[in-house]
Amino acid sequence: MAATTMKASFPLLMLMGISFLASVCVSSRSDPQNPFIFKSNKFQTLFENENGHIRLLQKFDQRSKIFENLQNYRLLEYKSKPHTIFLPQHTDADYILVVLSGKAILTVLKPDDRNSFNLERGDTIKLPAGTIAYLVNRDDNEELRVLDLAIPVNRPGQLQSFLLSGNQNQQNYLSGFSKNILEASFNTDYEEIEKVLLEEHEKETQHRRSLKDKRQQSQEENVIVKLSRGQIEELSKNAKSTSKKSVSSESEPFNLRSRGPIYSNEFGKFFEITPEKNPQLQDLDIFVNSVEIKEGSLLLPHYNSRAIVIVTVNEGKGDFELVGQRNENQQEQRKEDDEEEEQGEEEINKQVQNYKAKLSSGDVFVIPAGHPVAVKASSNLDLLGFGINAENNQRNFLAGDEDNVISQIQRPVKELAFPGSAQEVDRILENQKQSHFADAQPQQRERGSRETRDRLSSV
Amino acid sequence: MAATTMKASFPLLMLMGISFLASVCVSSRSDPQNPFIFKSNKFQTLFENENGHIRLLQKFDQRSKIFENLQNYRLLEYKSKPHTIFLPQHTDADYILVVLSGKAILTVLKPDDRNSFNLERGDTIKLPAGTIAYLVNRDDNEELRVLDLAIPVNRPGQLQSFLLSGNQNQQNYLSGFSKNILEASFNTDYEEIEKVLLEEHEKETQHRRSLKDKRQQSQEENVIVKLSRGQIEELSKNAKSTSKKSVSSESEPFNLRSRGPIYSNEFGKFFEITPEKNPQLQDLDIFVNSVEIKEGSLLLPHYNSRAIVIVTVNEGKGDFELVGQRNENQQEQRKEDDEEEEQGEEEINKQVQNYKAKLSSGDVFVIPAGHPVAVKASSNLDLLGFGINAENNQRNFLAGDEDNVISQIQRPVKELAFPGSAQEVDRILENQKQSHFADAQPQQRERGSRETRDRLSSV
Amino acid sequence: MAATTMKASFPLLMLMGISFLASVCVSSRSDPQNPFIFKSNKFQTLFENENGHIRLLQKFDQRSKIFENLQNYRLLEYKSKPHTIFLPQHTDADYILVVLSGKAILTVLKPDDRNSFNLERGDTIKLPAGTIAYLVNRDDNEELRVLDLAIPVNRPGQLQSFLLSGNQNQQNYLSGFSKNILEASFNTDYEEIEKVLLEEHEKETQHRRSLKDKRQQSQEENVIVKLSRGQIEELSKNAKSTSKKSVSSESEPFNLRSRGPIYSNEFGKFFEITPEKNPQLQDLDIFVNSVEIKEGSLLLPHYNSRAIVIVTVNEGKGDFELVGQRNENQQEQRKEDDEEEEQGEEEINKQVQNYKAKLSSGDVFVIPAGHPVAVKASSNLDLLGFGINAENNQRNFLAGDEDNVISQIQRPVKELAFPGSAQEVDRILENQKQSHFADAQPQQRERGSRETRDRLSSV
Repeated sequence: MAATTMKASFPLLMLMGISFLASVCVSSRSDPQNPFIFKSNKFQTLFENENGHIRLLQKFDQRSKIFENLQNYRLLEYKSKPHTIFLPQHTDADYILVVLSGKAILTVLKPDDRNSFNLERGDTIKLPAGTIAYLVNRDDNEELRVLDLAIPVNRPGQLQSFLLSGNQNQQNYLSGFSKNILEASFNTDYEEIEKVLLEEHEKETQHRRSLKDKRQQSQEENVIVKLSRGQIEELSKNAKSTSKKSVSSESEPFNLRSRGPIYSNEFGKFFEITPEKNPQLQDLDIFVNSVEIKEGSLLLPHYNSRAIVIVTVNEGKGDFELVGQRNENQQEQRKEDDEEEEQGEEEINKQVQNYKAKLSSGDVFVIPAGHPVAVKASSNLDLLGFGINAENNQRNFLAGDEDNVISQIQRPVKELAFPGSAQEVDRILENQKQSHFADAQPQQRERGSRETRDRLSSV
Repeated sequence: MAATTMKASFPLLMLMGISFLASVCVSSRSDPQNPFIFKSNKFQTLFENENGHIRLLQKFDQRSKIFENLQNYRLLEYKSKPHTIFLPQHTDADYILVVLSGKAILTVLKPDDRNSFNLERGDTIKLPAGTIAYLVNRDDNEELRVLDLAIPVNRPGQLQSFLLSGNQNQQNYLSGFSKNILEASFNTDYEEIEKVLLEEHEKETQHRRSLKDKRQQSQEENVIVKLSRGQIEELSKNAKSTSKKSVSSESEPFNLRSRGPIYSNEFGKFFEITPEKNPQLQDLDIFVNSVEIKEGSLLLPHYNSRAIVIVTVNEGKGDFELVGQRNENQQEQRKEDDEEEEQGEEEINKQVQNYKAKLSSGDVFVIPAGHPVAVKASSNLDLLGFGINAENNQRNFLAGDEDNVISQIQRPVKELAFPGSAQEVDRILENQKQSHFADAQPQQRERGSRETRDRLSSV
Repeated sequence: MAATTMKASFPLLMLMGISFLASVCVSSRSDPQNPFIFKSNKFQTLFENENGHIRLLQKFDQRSKIFENLQNYRLLEYKSKPHTIFLPQHTDADYILVVLSGKAILTVLKPDDRNSFNLERGDTIKLPAGTIAYLVNRDDNEELRVLDLAIPVNRPGQLQSFLLSGNQNQQNYLSGFSKNILEASFNTDYEEIEKVLLEEHEKETQHRRSLKDKRQQSQEENVIVKLSRGQIEELSKNAKSTSKKSVSSESEPFNLRSRGPIYSNEFGKFFEITPEKNPQLQDLDIFVNSVEIKEGSLLLPHYNSRAIVIVTVNEGKGDFELVGQRNENQQEQRKEDDEEEEQGEEEINKQVQNYKAKLSSGDVFVIPAGHPVAVKASSNLDLLGFGINAENNQRNFLAGDEDNVISQIQRPVKELAFPGSAQEVDRILENQKQSHFADAQPQQRERGSRETRDRLSSV
């Protein structure tokens, strides 16, 4: 049937002279139809207790087929109260861990070694798949918030975590081995192993029925648990702090701001650590950036040449606009479009499409490669981005004084590409004295002050 | 049901002694059933006007599941009249661009730089994803024809192009941003931006209904447009030409013939640039080759050890034969075979299969790794090939004086592998004095001249 | 419907306080439900005659979706009688070939060269895709058994072999070319080519109907055929033997034991060649290991940090235990779980799960990354493993004196993670004096001797 549709519609489209990616009507779509924004409620809670929680963002490719290349990337958010610990565990995924806020001690175990690090906001480290680690909120007052990009190794987009803790009502994964394997492994009677490393199984089963609510609670307490001040002091003894040097270390954390910003002015700052700068990011081919946009400012329109960027709003509010494309009759013909796409007819008759979203803390948005984007801050906005396909990525700005790729177009081509003359185009390009970041409402302010003036004078 | 079929058929096949890949009957398939050939009508027109067109080949994996590993490769053909320009655009795909015929100026923009290159037939360059470029046909008479292999970065096998041109009735992608983002970005009133960079929106909407046909036409004119001689002169001012040196450049074009042919004799020439020779091809792991087969000559049977090669017929006519395999009852049992394949039974009971096709200009064929192939030219034939999995690919010839892998088989194994004695096998292997290319009809000619002689003498 | 299920079940699960990967009931699953074990009957016979056979293991991802990342890996077993040869062929897959037992001569052809190698147990070589090779069992008495890991290049998980042999009733792939291509290629009359290189076609077609059974038999004989002692001598003339040096060769075979064991004691030995040690394994990113566990011994619980390991039981019997996870209501709700997984809810409510299997010669098991595993030998057990994602893989032991990652946990965390005190935990960890391998039944023996003593004293 799809084939029939094609045969009918395809020559027709051609007759109608539908062009490559031309469009006359630029429509705008509200959030429910904007696949690029993941509001914070798209995180699902994996674990939660009084001490903190772990949340996992919806699969990107589950939201939309356009994120097929993100199927093996997952975003995790971890939050915990002061003086708590996330107990030892390992996961079948590589992690890039970034501290969004708070102060942590991260301890990473190896078969014959152990490393502890003091982490602060912006500190970043790669935890290779299978690393056993635990994470302490060492601060007296502040919550600890951590964002992880996870890249699973066993199965695309699927994570499995193995928790090495067990007391009272909960089992650790060692209990997954049979009695005789455990006895032989630890050269110890099973009762002793059970008492010291596992829970007391028999007793527990009795409790289980009568004390279900209690059990659940204590079970939960077991993933993120409280620490005394003394315990924190003991754990922080040999913890190293992130140094400027560590930006190129193979295994130590580095701070996103340890190198100066790549773009910076009074309206914002852009920090970025690329695979070229840090060996930990090389085999994953990922960059991590941190972008600060001042209230009332704008990150100028630009696109990433080859990276797909997953951006999390750490703090603040703002607006996001992305230019994409959609098929002409997308809304009416969704089903058919899908089928046509399967037929490889997807490139025909695309239209320019504006995708807008309001941003607030905890939201995530995705910027595909080549797609122009701009972000406006309505309050100081702090963004954290992970860029996939980072190597050789180039950020091409479409406005601004420097790095503005449009200003590189030769005179005769400017004349042909734009309705105005080359002089007129250049005059507009030169109006913006700022680069990368600019005032978000220079015209409105002017107009505003003009209007005020007018109103005043009319009084 | 598939499982039942298997259970029934599997032991039966074994009883019948069906072997690994043995076959008695070699059948031959006509074009409709030959998945390896894509006739030129399998290109779909993305854009067309009086100045030229852009066409995109059907997805390889849409044609057949056997091309699953080609799902992220697309083939584009671009053609334009003398004194025209393909206006600035970028695409979310890496491109390998090869000039098939004509003379071009390619201009590549960077945020702070611009490079223009004079291109001629055989000139090749990688355009990384997101590169803004424009392409001029600078010749006074000749059409420009360009072939692109595209490797999308956002979504497997899907391309999106962003056109940076807008006048009269068509919008550029800047119009995808909202009014206030544009005003802030260019620090300019929207009316001015609209007039100079975008189209005149209001006016246009009125025209839109009344002048639909006209609009479509001018809209099309906007992708590939005419250039005056003066404009071409201005654009060619700083254009560099391809030098012999540039074969190993990171970003400059190189010519496929800048190094001598790897195989050459009176019957044909074989040029090839591999990732080992050119850094632009390294991360894509692709080779590009150009093969010239003289009328009446044959590219001898050979296979590529690991590369899958996508070959386009640039000029000429010929015949292509490929040796593949098919399941014994493929035609009768297509559906079931598919299901059996899902069951992993695909390797059993394969038969040698001859796949033939007539070749003419614009046709494309695919040679999977390991599959023996031969090509015969009925007129001078010019082929352009892109090889996927290029690194360490080895071309093993099955006939000819040199590079003939069969001649390396040891004597006792020749006796066992072939019906003839080792001496008889060697005698046949030595009959062919040519390597790589040879006369396509030495026997027929002999016979022909014999027959002529006979006829003459019988007269 | 799945969505409805989710909406209903998700908040409920949260209310019930289901945690991350906690579990109270650890259940154990018998073989039919254990996706990690492939009994030897999961090999399918591709070819079999009186001289030997070739068998191919079921696709990993066909068994279970959890092996999605193994979809492009296949396991082949080859077995042949003394004084036989597997005739020349090539396949569209990279191979890692390991000799399980017996003595072979492997001959590898290149267009202009040929290399023969004497192989013995543990000798390993990479055969790049498309390599023409033949394999002789040169021993007078012993069977030759070879295991191949195949990584196809044309199509995920699908192999095609091209056999270069033809006599009597079977065709080689050269017969896939048409008569006139063959005549031109070999510059020889077709009758001669047919007689010497192909079979006699006409005659054969007649035979075909009348002598079907005979044909099938002789057809089979043609893949693995007998060799005389004289032929073997001729073939072994220039065959090189594997040297200690060749462990780092680009193309020569190396022995898995050419470097000392990485773990070794009286209970077992562990040999491993990683990509870091051998260039042949680098681009495939695979390690190969050979593990010997003495009768009554245990390979201590451990996990691979990032490698997925495919293990074949070469010799002996034993037991295998793997700790995995499963969804809580998996058995009841299989269908729904699948749907929920599609919804990305897969991570919630996972339980620790013990997967057990009896091992015997020819069985295969898969150990996903991060999954704890232990293997017990009931008779001397010899295992051969291929590790996918080998680079930077780390083996973390969970018991034993050395390399025990649990012993690296800091004191206060031990207290919190385990029910016992830090001292109690340390006491158990120190009970095991062995590393990596240990006695599988120290307790039972003690108890056994105690019971015997008791029984004796009670007499």
